[in-house]
Amino acid sequence: MTGLIEKVLAGDLVAAAKLITMVENNRDDAAKTIKEIFQYTGNAYIIGITGSPGVGKSTLVSEMVRIFRERNQTVGVIAVDASSPFTGGAVLGDRIRMHRHKPDDAGVFVRSMATRGHLGGVSVATRDASFVMDALGRDVIIIETVGVGQVELEIAKMAYTTVVALAPGMGDSIQAIKAGIMEIGDIFVVNKADHDGADATVMDIHNMLTFRTIKSKWEPQIYKTSAVSGKGVAEFIDGIEKHKRYLKNSDLINKKKYDKEQLLYLVKERVERWILADKFGKEYFDKYVKRIIEREVDPYTASENILKEMGLHQV
Amino acid sequence: MTGLIEKVLAGDLVAAAKLITMVENNRDDAAKTIKEIFQYTGNAYIIGITGSPGVGKSTLVSEMVRIFRERNQTVGVIAVDASSPFTGGAVLGDRIRMHRHKPDDAGVFVRSMATRGHLGGVSVATRDASFVMDALGRDVIIIETVGVGQVELEIAKMAYTTVVALAPGMGDSIQAIKAGIMEIGDIFVVNKADHDGADATVMDIHNMLTFRTIKSKWEPQIYKTSAVSGKGVAEFIDGIEKHKRYLKNSDLINKKKYDKEQLLYLVKERVERWILADKFGKEYFDKYVKRIIEREVDPYTASENILKEMGLHQV
Repeated sequence: MTGLIEKVLAGDLVAAAKLITMVENNRDDAAKTIKEIFQYTGNAYIIGITGSPGVGKSTLVSEMVRIFRERNQTVGVIAVDASSPFTGGAVLGDRIRMHRHKPDDAGVFVRSMATRGHLGGVSVATRDASFVMDALGRDVIIIETVGVGQVELEIAKMAYTTVVALAPGMGDSIQAIKAGIMEIGDIFVVNKADHDGADATVMDIHNMLTFRTIKSKWEPQIYKTSAVSGKGVAEFIDGIEKHKRYLKNSDLINKKKYDKEQLLYLVKERVERWILADKFGKEYFDKYVKRIIEREVDPYTASENILKEMGLHQV
Repeated sequence: MTGLIEKVLAGDLVAAAKLITMVENNRDDAAKTIKEIFQYTGNAYIIGITGSPGVGKSTLVSEMVRIFRERNQTVGVIAVDASSPFTGGAVLGDRIRMHRHKPDDAGVFVRSMATRGHLGGVSVATRDASFVMDALGRDVIIIETVGVGQVELEIAKMAYTTVVALAPGMGDSIQAIKAGIMEIGDIFVVNKADHDGADATVMDIHNMLTFRTIKSKWEPQIYKTSAVSGKGVAEFIDGIEKHKRYLKNSDLINKKKYDKEQLLYLVKERVERWILADKFGKEYFDKYVKRIIEREVDPYTASENILKEMGLHQV
């Protein structure tokens, strides 16, 4: 693995792809990898983009990549498929190819991630993949998610700029409100702006933004784009740069550089793995579940006993 | 609180409402309460029912309540509003009143829960509320959820019988597949069966069930109901009773009596609360986050150090 890491630090894309696979599939490999590469991370600018299927998001991301490349920025794209644990991973296969408009351009590195496991696990795996891309030296990392759910909210926490993409007449706005997406967008893009109703959608967003409960000095911006023709995309990228300057000037950018929820997740995950596998084992844990089912012990006392038996006495 | 618990065990509805509020709002109160009442639980039959808004689910639940009461069963209803953390809790207000067709009937106890906090917290709070209803002596507890997402999947784990409600021509079936709901339903109900397309929806479900990856000896049953007129609801309840007999005869009912994921959650939650509040404190934790942001330590090493400093040496 150390050989692989050295190659990644030297900019080797094949090594990066291998390393992300290892990091994604094995928690021990993830720990070892991030421990080694972490000191080389923190330089990439992370953009999160979310939106329902049908808003033309993959075309928009392709255009974003093209413009960042024109501006001599190297780009990594992480496409997170936030569909269910049962169907996870199937949706993105074809979409990924759309990003590969220049397969010979080493300045573009695209990776899709299926959302296996529980919620926190998805965002930790995405974060770890972004660390690898960061260590690879990408200037910009775009994390693309499908839909408007909890995964999007978690990924918004790790993105410096969160973009919400909508399209005219899709009724997305109501969905977005319901899911809390209106609260987290730094920039809103109405794609397919050449279609009927684009201005109405812009107005909808304007109106909805007045209901935001999270107040900040940054006023969310709304851009109209037509990703197919490329129209408006450069202005939208300028908007991202503007938000980046805002974060840097107000020193807010550091707050985004690591999310405390993820550290908590890692601590708790370590405890879980310890209980289930390493020291105590599944049988030990199953014995407690059985005693709970038989009403010999209640779940809260059981959880405290487990921690005591693990060496945590002050519970 | 002990006085409250005694009243609940004696069947006092007002005391039960107060106790659920305490359990829902304060984790220490939850621990104390469940420790005291747990020995009196495990007797209620827990039914989970899920479905999108618009399938007439609240009318259906009202009818279920009416029939269970006719059959001399006391009923508790927990309505979980699984909307976003931002809008959480608003949706159910009016719907709850629909259940109160007989406000003087002490055999019906209805409670709505907003889904504050993270995912695992919702199901633990719902579980704890069900323990209170169980200790109150309810024969049947119906846990009603809105929509088809992760919360529904978690609640299905704690329900003995999981019911998925659909309606003709709502395109719910595709949503249900995506969310994995088809995998977890023991019983499917096509409500509004007097509307056009009911038989087509039944066929859709039949076809989708052939794709189930989870195999069991229980063959999922499909019922047609018209909750407004009451037609078909008694047969549907008979179907639940049939599933109950299946679980009892095959000794599977014990597996449903406590979910190991919830014990894991409680253990991890205790660790989290210990880090953030009790022993170590928020400052201690924030210091680590700051060091991570400054790239002085990586997140994995930080998580291991936190556990070591908590007294867990074998990490």
